Amino acid sequence: VRYIVGIDIGGTNLVVGTVAEDGSELVGEVSEPTHSEEGADAVMGRIGRLVKSSIAGARGKEIAGVGIGSPGPLDTARGVVLFTPNLGWTNFPLRDRVSKMTGLPAELDNDANCAIYGEWWRGAARGARAVVGLTIGTGIGGGIVLDGKIYHGVSDVAGEIGHTTIDPTGRRCKCGNYGCLEAYASGPAIAARAAEGIESGVETSLGKYVGGDLGKLTAQVVYQAAHDGDLYAREVVNDTAKLLGAGVANIINIFNPDVVVICGGVTLAGALLFDPLRREVHRRAFKDAVKACRIVPGELPGTAGVFGAAAAFIHKHRGGSA
Amino acid sequence: VRYIVGIDIGGTNLVVGTVAEDGSELVGEVSEPTHSEEGADAVMGRIGRLVKSSIAGARGKEIAGVGIGSPGPLDTARGVVLFTPNLGWTNFPLRDRVSKMTGLPAELDNDANCAIYGEWWRGAARGARAVVGLTIGTGIGGGIVLDGKIYHGVSDVAGEIGHTTIDPTGRRCKCGNYGCLEAYASGPAIAARAAEGIESGVETSLGKYVGGDLGKLTAQVVYQAAHDGDLYAREVVNDTAKLLGAGVANIINIFNPDVVVICGGVTLAGALLFDPLRREVHRRAFKDAVKACRIVPGELPGTAGVFGAAAAFIHKHRGGSA
Repeated sequence: VRYIVGIDIGGTNLVVGTVAEDGSELVGEVSEPTHSEEGADAVMGRIGRLVKSSIAGARGKEIAGVGIGSPGPLDTARGVVLFTPNLGWTNFPLRDRVSKMTGLPAELDNDANCAIYGEWWRGAARGARAVVGLTIGTGIGGGIVLDGKIYHGVSDVAGEIGHTTIDPTGRRCKCGNYGCLEAYASGPAIAARAAEGIESGVETSLGKYVGGDLGKLTAQVVYQAAHDGDLYAREVVNDTAKLLGAGVANIINIFNPDVVVICGGVTLAGALLFDPLRREVHRRAFKDAVKACRIVPGELPGTAGVFGAAAAFIHKHRGGSA
Repeated sequence: VRYIVGIDIGGTNLVVGTVAEDGSELVGEVSEPTHSEEGADAVMGRIGRLVKSSIAGARGKEIAGVGIGSPGPLDTARGVVLFTPNLGWTNFPLRDRVSKMTGLPAELDNDANCAIYGEWWRGAARGARAVVGLTIGTGIGGGIVLDGKIYHGVSDVAGEIGHTTIDPTGRRCKCGNYGCLEAYASGPAIAARAAEGIESGVETSLGKYVGGDLGKLTAQVVYQAAHDGDLYAREVVNDTAKLLGAGVANIINIFNPDVVVICGGVTLAGALLFDPLRREVHRRAFKDAVKACRIVPGELPGTAGVFGAAAAFIHKHRGGSA
């Protein structure tokens, strides 16, 4: 069995691991902060060291190539990052830079696509025919896997489910649109909605979790307070679940998938999120489509993107099972 | 060249035509009111006569089979109509009934899928790699054609784009959900929104078009008045365009298609609808995805479903170009 290095480039962290071509194991998992403010060359140097260290962890296995998951938009055919606000890269030939640096063939795909592809290959959506996934963090990414292949659309920008309008006159989104799912259910949007309530005087213990500094309020804090029984935090999680439920119901009526997988920090909210989310989906989507679909949290927090980047490499080289 | 009979079963009309396997011509186009209230046997008898008459119009061409487009939900593999509110059929083995009646092999697919497949094969989306279409009439149907194949989802109910939520607390839809695209932009929804304005006292000539009987107000009347310069009718068309624009922007951000095709009576509104619709899409969707996509009216009013039903037969038998 040959091995493939998977690289997951995030705005905050770089994660690299080496994955068996048959998906049976991930070895040499290493991670470092991205520090994109130091510029592309510094980030590339860091990636190079992480790849070396990961391959060393694979103890002499044959390495077939490198799969890279990066924020986009990308041109996957040319292996170029067209533009990433978070990393500050423009028309950056990431695939060829990585290939030259490592001496290995490389392939590039979108980070959210890779995360969902990883969940399809080795995680919560294993074996599913039609998978639509959301990665919820600073933003909301999306990925679509149909018949074992990532669906890219005609110019590599498909799957932007976080930027579908669920309220036409709603909150302004960073993308310029109004009422996007991301403007309500991303980590920062959840924290902002919670802070708005506190500022308007609702009764809650949330302030205590951040020493009274609402600037420190995060979605994670909201989930923690909800688990601890804070009623207002539970209301915020419940509202988030309903809004996500509307988005997931749309996905289900459009794609009739067998699995919708939800990845990212939001899954820490557990049943407090998934129970009302599933109820909202039942209320909104077609019964036949709901019946056919499992709505599940991701099973590979931290490594879905690494598995998926490796799987994307394997798929493009048609050498393995992904 | 062999020919295929295409049957388009609508709640109001049955349309049948005979289509050359290479798509080069449609002959023997015949149509009759469905009269579903007379029961399934009466409708089947009518379909049988229309098929005979269409084949006669094909003057001795070899007939390879029959493609059927029907309202759903369906089980396409078994060729069964599971349930259609408009026709009153339940678990109706439509494919085998048509096959037995005509002595020809038959295939069944969803009516909206067939309409969009017809537009992909011979109409406005010819040659496109990723097509998403809406059929706007009494309801809003949807169809998805990827790499020349109808996308069905895992249980044959994909493509229900008319039943995606665009406003979570919005108008009640017939499907039970709130704020569906169909609840705003179907023909009856357009007429209802226009009537609400008239009842609340806006200045408009719309009442004159229906002799003061608002029960007779239809979307077609609204388009006519808009073309004639009625400002309120133009406002209704403009609002419809914006709501459709939000729905189309969602489709574009999700699928990154090269063509979005809009079929049905709503296209009669012409530039009054398509200009503000395209503007709204530009405002809402990602630039890269908008740039890659044409938004066009269907080119085969009345026959897209017949072409598409024939194409669905051809695709399933892999005997032709569709």
